[in-house]
Amino acid sequence: MAQEILDNSAYPMVGGDGPYSYARNSNYQKESLDSAKKMMNELIDQHLHPENHLHSMNPFSNSFRVADFGCSAGPNTFHAVHNIIEAVENKYKSLRMEAEMPEFHVFFNDHVNNDFNTLFRNLPATGRYFATGVPGSFYGRLLPRSTLHFAHCSTALHWLSKIPVEVTDKNSPAWNKGRIHYTGAAREVEDAYSTQFGKDFDLFLRARAQELVPGGLMMIVAVGFPDDVQICESSLGENFNVLGSCFLDMAKMGIITQEMVDSFNLHFYYPSPSELKTLIEVNGLFEIKKIEKLVSSIANKRVLLDVDACILHLRAVLGELIKEHFGEGVIDILLERHREKYIENPILSDERYIKEASYAVFLKRKIRVTSRRNSI
Amino acid sequence: MAQEILDNSAYPMVGGDGPYSYARNSNYQKESLDSAKKMMNELIDQHLHPENHLHSMNPFSNSFRVADFGCSAGPNTFHAVHNIIEAVENKYKSLRMEAEMPEFHVFFNDHVNNDFNTLFRNLPATGRYFATGVPGSFYGRLLPRSTLHFAHCSTALHWLSKIPVEVTDKNSPAWNKGRIHYTGAAREVEDAYSTQFGKDFDLFLRARAQELVPGGLMMIVAVGFPDDVQICESSLGENFNVLGSCFLDMAKMGIITQEMVDSFNLHFYYPSPSELKTLIEVNGLFEIKKIEKLVSSIANKRVLLDVDACILHLRAVLGELIKEHFGEGVIDILLERHREKYIENPILSDERYIKEASYAVFLKRKIRVTSRRNSI
Repeated sequence: MAQEILDNSAYPMVGGDGPYSYARNSNYQKESLDSAKKMMNELIDQHLHPENHLHSMNPFSNSFRVADFGCSAGPNTFHAVHNIIEAVENKYKSLRMEAEMPEFHVFFNDHVNNDFNTLFRNLPATGRYFATGVPGSFYGRLLPRSTLHFAHCSTALHWLSKIPVEVTDKNSPAWNKGRIHYTGAAREVEDAYSTQFGKDFDLFLRARAQELVPGGLMMIVAVGFPDDVQICESSLGENFNVLGSCFLDMAKMGIITQEMVDSFNLHFYYPSPSELKTLIEVNGLFEIKKIEKLVSSIANKRVLLDVDACILHLRAVLGELIKEHFGEGVIDILLERHREKYIENPILSDERYIKEASYAVFLKRKIRVTSRRNSI
Repeated sequence: MAQEILDNSAYPMVGGDGPYSYARNSNYQKESLDSAKKMMNELIDQHLHPENHLHSMNPFSNSFRVADFGCSAGPNTFHAVHNIIEAVENKYKSLRMEAEMPEFHVFFNDHVNNDFNTLFRNLPATGRYFATGVPGSFYGRLLPRSTLHFAHCSTALHWLSKIPVEVTDKNSPAWNKGRIHYTGAAREVEDAYSTQFGKDFDLFLRARAQELVPGGLMMIVAVGFPDDVQICESSLGENFNVLGSCFLDMAKMGIITQEMVDSFNLHFYYPSPSELKTLIEVNGLFEIKKIEKLVSSIANKRVLLDVDACILHLRAVLGELIKEHFGEGVIDILLERHREKYIENPILSDERYIKEASYAVFLKRKIRVTSRRNSI
């Protein structure tokens, strides 16, 4: 249940450094970063060409701009930025261009209600880069045109910009009554989620294509399921089902209403690598340099099975969201009930059912875009 | 007493939007901005030369970067940025260069413990510029070399980076026993403050000179006293004296210790325009285009004399600082005592003693710096 602990949402992660904070409950994401590091090094080495001076046309300035979209309050974003800068520095060194080493300017982006105060207080004091915070949704423009050299976005894109309207429309075949996610729901519900993801991802790619310099690079780490796996066959899907059943129990007990459950849906959509590939191709603004499944360690899979870790994660990620929809106090009862059901459920403690994966997607912004539809 | 309500300190303004927040108690600063607006328009018109393409050497990008150093949590920083952007837009229009109108990228800077969350939540939704927050002291570098086109810093530079060490050294002739400011103190105390201001201002100018593009512009609004006025002759100085006497009273009453008072000093230094001019010339990195006293309205002067406004201001500006040095609860007793003395003091309610002023300093970063000392 840890993989929905993501970095970007209009409902922010729990801020600060406390025991329920995202900052203390995001180890799982760190592993994705670590396993992406080697690949990023190789790809930056192959596809970054500082000798072409694409990013230093101003003779007075030599700065290299990096942005992390959906950064949350740290600390994973600092690891990601560190890895990117190290890879770029390595490239300069390999070309014996140390004398032209740029100054790094880093843009940490997340929603306006992200805890930027905590992010800023935890910034590493390395002096290796100049840091800024950028508030706003990454489904729109956040930086001026052609100013960014490297865009990064890790385990954040499966937070949809909104719940598709059909899903809460009683008159729609996609009405998701009695469920809180598309897992195990009618085909129409999953389609509505998938369509929303497609729209959101296209907006993301268009905004980044405008912000990146021609030839600029982007690394996305997306959480999804392999092409031949359905979410309902996985422990992640089962976890959503169990969580949904806890809400229904609470409605039966009169703690919340059935209408509150019917109108509550989680914002998460998990694409397949083929789906990502198709959406990027249809968008047409980027060359795909690589799409690769990241390796997850056995140790980390075990963390996914641990009930305490699961409960902490749920609180960090869903605490604010649930409070806003259901009111104060509901999260405690919900998580206690979830804990009981979790322990009894064989699927949730069996690592064979962990089927979700992180996919690293490495893109290069096309220098010329020929299709009129996608001119930027 | 309102003019020490400044925008930059390691001790932040009271954050949020509450009744004691800086956001609600900074009208006085707004007037400085308003009266600086006309001058800024004229000077940007005279000294900005977009036709020279100094800031658009990258053929793909056309962004104009503005930074406000010591921005606090708003709203004055938004007015300042609005005025700057409007002036730049006017210049482009007057040259009939609308087609080349840049995208604006704005950097809001203040100390790392500034309330950036509130700043971001209050950002105007105009879509007129891309906004970022930059945490850190403006006495050091905050942005990459030669990337900034316009630097702004309003009523923030009289916050010294630190209290000069001599002032709290019992063995120094500059030991400021029984006082909390250089007002009315020994010559050595004022000299120590003045020297510290000189060092700080030089660091500020050096950092900005590195960040600005050659020919880049800077507007500083500095609070100070006319060349022929001593701070001890003013209501501002008298206010510091009264505040200091309240601390001493509290020490006599045993609420705080005498040592606590002796070791407490306010970080504010108010230069004269001649002092500013000399320091800029010695620094050597900027051409002075104008130094001008800003006009203050009678209505605003009246606000300075209002005891309630004074108490609110003191709480907004000094609340955190006093809590850190003296502990919880002291501020309430202090301000109650200060209120009593304020009402009884004829100088504090007489507008003839309001002698401080805001000085607008308009600078242009030299394109070539010949002196070796100041090479950047």
